[in-house]
Amino acid sequence: MTQPLRIAMIGAGFMGAAHSQGWRVAPRFFDLPRSPEMSVLVGRDATRTQQCADTWGWGESATDWREVVQRPDVDVVDIVTPGDTHAEIAIAALEAGKHVLCEKPLANTVDEARRMADAAAAAAENGIRSMVGFTYRRLPATTFARDLIAAGRLGDIRQVRAEYLQDWLSDAEAPLTWRLQKDRAGSGALGDIGAHAVDITEYMTGQRVTRVAGVLETIVAERPVLASSSGLSGSAGTERGAVTVDDLALFTGRLESGALASFEASRFRLGRKNGLRVEIAGSLGSLSFDLESPNELHLYDATLPDTEQGFRRILVTEPGHPYAGAWWPTGHMLGYEHGFSHQAKDFVEAIAADADPRPSFADGLHVQEVLDAVARSSDAEGAWTSVEAPTAPVAADQLLAAS
Amino acid sequence: MTQPLRIAMIGAGFMGAAHSQGWRVAPRFFDLPRSPEMSVLVGRDATRTQQCADTWGWGESATDWREVVQRPDVDVVDIVTPGDTHAEIAIAALEAGKHVLCEKPLANTVDEARRMADAAAAAAENGIRSMVGFTYRRLPATTFARDLIAAGRLGDIRQVRAEYLQDWLSDAEAPLTWRLQKDRAGSGALGDIGAHAVDITEYMTGQRVTRVAGVLETIVAERPVLASSSGLSGSAGTERGAVTVDDLALFTGRLESGALASFEASRFRLGRKNGLRVEIAGSLGSLSFDLESPNELHLYDATLPDTEQGFRRILVTEPGHPYAGAWWPTGHMLGYEHGFSHQAKDFVEAIAADADPRPSFADGLHVQEVLDAVARSSDAEGAWTSVEAPTAPVAADQLLAAS
Amino acid sequence: MTQPLRIAMIGAGFMGAAHSQGWRVAPRFFDLPRSPEMSVLVGRDATRTQQCADTWGWGESATDWREVVQRPDVDVVDIVTPGDTHAEIAIAALEAGKHVLCEKPLANTVDEARRMADAAAAAAENGIRSMVGFTYRRLPATTFARDLIAAGRLGDIRQVRAEYLQDWLSDAEAPLTWRLQKDRAGSGALGDIGAHAVDITEYMTGQRVTRVAGVLETIVAERPVLASSSGLSGSAGTERGAVTVDDLALFTGRLESGALASFEASRFRLGRKNGLRVEIAGSLGSLSFDLESPNELHLYDATLPDTEQGFRRILVTEPGHPYAGAWWPTGHMLGYEHGFSHQAKDFVEAIAADADPRPSFADGLHVQEVLDAVARSSDAEGAWTSVEAPTAPVAADQLLAAS
Amino acid sequence: MTQPLRIAMIGAGFMGAAHSQGWRVAPRFFDLPRSPEMSVLVGRDATRTQQCADTWGWGESATDWREVVQRPDVDVVDIVTPGDTHAEIAIAALEAGKHVLCEKPLANTVDEARRMADAAAAAAENGIRSMVGFTYRRLPATTFARDLIAAGRLGDIRQVRAEYLQDWLSDAEAPLTWRLQKDRAGSGALGDIGAHAVDITEYMTGQRVTRVAGVLETIVAERPVLASSSGLSGSAGTERGAVTVDDLALFTGRLESGALASFEASRFRLGRKNGLRVEIAGSLGSLSFDLESPNELHLYDATLPDTEQGFRRILVTEPGHPYAGAWWPTGHMLGYEHGFSHQAKDFVEAIAADADPRPSFADGLHVQEVLDAVARSSDAEGAWTSVEAPTAPVAADQLLAAS
Repeated sequence: MTQPLRIAMIGAGFMGAAHSQGWRVAPRFFDLPRSPEMSVLVGRDATRTQQCADTWGWGESATDWREVVQRPDVDVVDIVTPGDTHAEIAIAALEAGKHVLCEKPLANTVDEARRMADAAAAAAENGIRSMVGFTYRRLPATTFARDLIAAGRLGDIRQVRAEYLQDWLSDAEAPLTWRLQKDRAGSGALGDIGAHAVDITEYMTGQRVTRVAGVLETIVAERPVLASSSGLSGSAGTERGAVTVDDLALFTGRLESGALASFEASRFRLGRKNGLRVEIAGSLGSLSFDLESPNELHLYDATLPDTEQGFRRILVTEPGHPYAGAWWPTGHMLGYEHGFSHQAKDFVEAIAADADPRPSFADGLHVQEVLDAVARSSDAEGAWTSVEAPTAPVAADQLLAAS
Repeated sequence: MTQPLRIAMIGAGFMGAAHSQGWRVAPRFFDLPRSPEMSVLVGRDATRTQQCADTWGWGESATDWREVVQRPDVDVVDIVTPGDTHAEIAIAALEAGKHVLCEKPLANTVDEARRMADAAAAAAENGIRSMVGFTYRRLPATTFARDLIAAGRLGDIRQVRAEYLQDWLSDAEAPLTWRLQKDRAGSGALGDIGAHAVDITEYMTGQRVTRVAGVLETIVAERPVLASSSGLSGSAGTERGAVTVDDLALFTGRLESGALASFEASRFRLGRKNGLRVEIAGSLGSLSFDLESPNELHLYDATLPDTEQGFRRILVTEPGHPYAGAWWPTGHMLGYEHGFSHQAKDFVEAIAADADPRPSFADGLHVQEVLDAVARSSDAEGAWTSVEAPTAPVAADQLLAAS
Repeated sequence: MTQPLRIAMIGAGFMGAAHSQGWRVAPRFFDLPRSPEMSVLVGRDATRTQQCADTWGWGESATDWREVVQRPDVDVVDIVTPGDTHAEIAIAALEAGKHVLCEKPLANTVDEARRMADAAAAAAENGIRSMVGFTYRRLPATTFARDLIAAGRLGDIRQVRAEYLQDWLSDAEAPLTWRLQKDRAGSGALGDIGAHAVDITEYMTGQRVTRVAGVLETIVAERPVLASSSGLSGSAGTERGAVTVDDLALFTGRLESGALASFEASRFRLGRKNGLRVEIAGSLGSLSFDLESPNELHLYDATLPDTEQGFRRILVTEPGHPYAGAWWPTGHMLGYEHGFSHQAKDFVEAIAADADPRPSFADGLHVQEVLDAVARSSDAEGAWTSVEAPTAPVAADQLLAAS
Repeated sequence: MTQPLRIAMIGAGFMGAAHSQGWRVAPRFFDLPRSPEMSVLVGRDATRTQQCADTWGWGESATDWREVVQRPDVDVVDIVTPGDTHAEIAIAALEAGKHVLCEKPLANTVDEARRMADAAAAAAENGIRSMVGFTYRRLPATTFARDLIAAGRLGDIRQVRAEYLQDWLSDAEAPLTWRLQKDRAGSGALGDIGAHAVDITEYMTGQRVTRVAGVLETIVAERPVLASSSGLSGSAGTERGAVTVDDLALFTGRLESGALASFEASRFRLGRKNGLRVEIAGSLGSLSFDLESPNELHLYDATLPDTEQGFRRILVTEPGHPYAGAWWPTGHMLGYEHGFSHQAKDFVEAIAADADPRPSFADGLHVQEVLDAVARSSDAEGAWTSVEAPTAPVAADQLLAAS
């Protein structure tokens, strides 16, 4: 009989459904060292939270996260709230001795992320584990890609292309939700999906981005204000407000080894629905991945005879592929939410093994620093900018005035 | 509070895991009129069955299916045992007044299938529902394909190509399991995967196959006998036994409208892992589906201007697509087991609505009759053979002798 | 200075443009042992033939092929007329001591084809060469596929799928041209494009089809009669005539080794424009080709580790690939007509080397025999039929009556 | 009888073969208003040039281009020499009253290109035509893309991704040819292939790039010196020299409308052989092109119902597609060199029509200015840089020192 691992999840939006599915399903397919129990779901609105708890299968619901993270019958706090609340909840939970799984992005600002990473480091000394939820790392195809690179199959990494392409803002009449307001969302495409492109690049290559140069762009500058947020029910459709986040982020990064990586995060690439695409070219081989075909990895092996080289479409569904053996026979596909089961499994295993899981809060902080450096570069007319935050960043207008 | 629907599942193999996942997950994403309860899991071996029950989340386990199908606290019997046991269990369950979900193929023989269909028809008069588990009907892409055809978007159906390609028998040294023995498995590729190709064709087109002509082929005629089945532990690897089922089935069918459909079921198409591929050409358009890319449907619309026609890769993940809206945002993919959640949902809804669900046992019988006609055609030197079973089939050698 | 090789081409339709391009371009990219000279173009209508000669670059034009094939200043006769005229022209040319290149299909009937093959065999004893124009053999990708198979890279051939899919007859109002009339065209999709599917299969596998079973289908049975052919200019669009050839051919063949191959030739696969697709599965590997992506070959190598297997998209444009080195750098694509340059090159080289080129008239005859056997099988209710023509074929109604 | 148009081609390398094929083949498929005559081929080495003239079919050969461009029996000068010689030859030819077709890039420097554009403008006043050889504009797919955009089918252009991916320098032991030396080649990937990416973007969108920010990178800094260029035949393989051009160029551009375009030119994207790929996203639709599948255009139409949207693979081989009708039936593919026939056709037609063809030398100059601005941006730490050349560019070190 495995020891239970009692989970409180804070947040009841779309990501809550995904995390719930992860906790629910993981123990059905993986032989876990501890048994996750979906104990408490915490949300703002009592009625709606209880409904979600019923639907998703949580034992009870609550509305005061501060109280819940102190409860002795909670082992893990799983945070799926918007990014501006992550720091406060996570730090409180860590200080209360709870293992913390936090959705990405780790926080909306580097400062918050740094405080979280510090808290995680302090907690780790007491055996408290923390992890940030970049689930796209945990697909068979992406993990297999990482393994191939780590084994030297691509040789030296020469260059990387990573892009995350969506189109859901393409309609200029889509309303001005909180996701389009900087104070709430932190940033736009950059933080929402660009963060994944950065993380998957660092994960696969095993290298960090050290410097960046780029541009952030708002393509549709004004959008209809939602009646509820304008407070005037009659004004819907006529009042327009400013979009204060980026719709498109284009940037170049320098990896630790010196190789260049180019990045794009766009919510305006019409026709691309969820295109997290990574292509990594090395001296001995290349590989290519597209989240719209999540069970495939395309591998190019330049050590084969010239006439036989080509990108090989590998269905990453063999028993020998990462995670895949626990599921279905060869050729039977996994979907979006399987990454959340893998995340649950890996987190449970790390806790049971007294090991710090990855991606750590420090990893999440680093991604945040990269995104921040991109924003600073964009403000500085695209100048190359160190990911290491400067003590006092040079303002763009100063830079221009000086020249 | 919705009324519970108490399920007993008979069988604890690979399909049991898939059905369990369907029952477990469906109510988390769909608002069901009754609440499925995973009550009893029935298997042959008590210890192993209890382990499966624990892993998959069944309330209890049992070993005597005859007893279980009589229990008053069971509403639904879900049959996932090998095909040669379906008839006995299903008929007993129906006669006991239980709704029955039965894995495909409905049975190993037409006779068994016919008795099951008769029992289902009789039970239906008492409000007892039955369904056969062709889950590939229940993917967003395949259902959307059916909807497009039903709406006339392809015009008249001119021809169909349906193939189910796997390669797991390609290794000639793979052992002689029960799946390769006719008395146990009924047939080989034909019944195992060809059945899906026939069903998906009939589902999408809304037409039945009425006549067939074809050939069944055993490519590797002898394989190593498993030590355990030979009863001589020392003989493994040396003794060889005859494969008595088909490795490959190639046949042509005539649809009700007169259109021709060509079929292939192969376990030797090296490199194809789970390629259920259907392409349907009509007078106004065409569509193409491949289970190895299960979230895509390729649609060709010949009513567009000549210069703009082309197969359109539709990601069937929009809220307006069948089933898709209950899951994740646009562009987030579903996998193999989602079909089982959709199956669970549809069966629960049919029961609650007092409606007969599809595919019915009569549908399953019809598929079995098609497969049987293919086997008879193959025995008759490939002659066109009516799916309506003759009263006394002509033996192949008689036919040849006569000419 | 290489010796000239003086060519007379008989026929001035669409294939004439392709052959002209082949003769014109081949010596510009390949170092040929003899210099092709485009001497005489022969057509029925003097004015139009002279126009074609001017456009295509022939030295002169003529209208009497019988005279031309006797001319001492002609070395090669290239036949691109409709199939019902091939036999007479080719035999006359061979008997006149001219090397003969004849478009496929070799003839419209097996009898004609056999007489041509006999004439070719007789001529060969006098050093006269003949070849039939299956140019799809002469693409880098298809030749490379053949080479890989010949080198044993696929192991034993287990099964073949070959299809040639077009859609240009999909419009039911397309007129009743001579191509839809059996007396002129011999057959429909079967001879026009099915012949390619058979030839490419035999070429790649190195094996002949020995038995077939299949069905020929006319999907649109009546079409508008062309005013010019009806002889009544006022009747266009109202009068309809019977289509007397097949629109669709579906058949299965047995190769020499015993492996099964399934074939389809269709002019009704809406959305497929020129889809000659071949997939060959062996015991060690598979390969796949599609003429709509003519510079690609997809190779699956089952000797690699399980987790690294996948179909490899090889761009067949490397210097080491067949024919490719003579053209452009890696990654620069060849098109449809390059096969005709390769055909010209290979024929010239064979003549200079005093060697019999392939595909020979005997090869062309064999393809014709396969097509004929398919037609006989279709008439015999789909019964397996030997490609070796029987002395007295059993009529279908006899066969059925007997049982 | 059409009037002849007598051509002298200067240069006898790889591009000479392509241009020769263009001149040779164009009049065979297009009905041209004047008849191109391949009169004189000019090269440095008399023997080798005469060999090329024989192979490619030029009437005579010569070694002194200065003399040839003055010959009264020459109407057109076609320049296919390396870029550092373009200006001198083109200006001399224009001043001699010859129509000039000049390979891309127009020149190695902006200064040279500007002098050429000025000369072309002056010559145009006397009815002398000039054109630069961006042949990828002249494929059916790319021209059709341009037409769709011009017709408003994509709505407002929101963003562009254009990349040209090759891998032929991926081998670090590939020798140090002149193409890797800045004084000869001008630049590396940027000018060689990045120029195409810029031109195709401007062509398809109808907009110019006005500002850029980017980075040029040399991935393999030293390579083996060729014995012949080191002058020491015994030193081959041991002596290494510096690569002085870029292997990789990554840059972002601002189009006239304000939309952003991101560009990549790489000779190190292992596995990509000739991947000129453009994807353009607008407010109503998107399109995607890849030169490795040159006969396809992928179109996404966002005005269709949500559930039916998808990228449509259009085979650009219909009679109604640009250029396509002159060649083969639907579905028969064109290759690399067809662009050269189309270029020849368009140039001949412009001359006959007394119209200035595009891309003009001014267009070529503009591309050169864009490339130059990229190089200046790279030198200036990636700062946004105007394509309009500044009177005195700010040096990178000055810019940094100032801040």
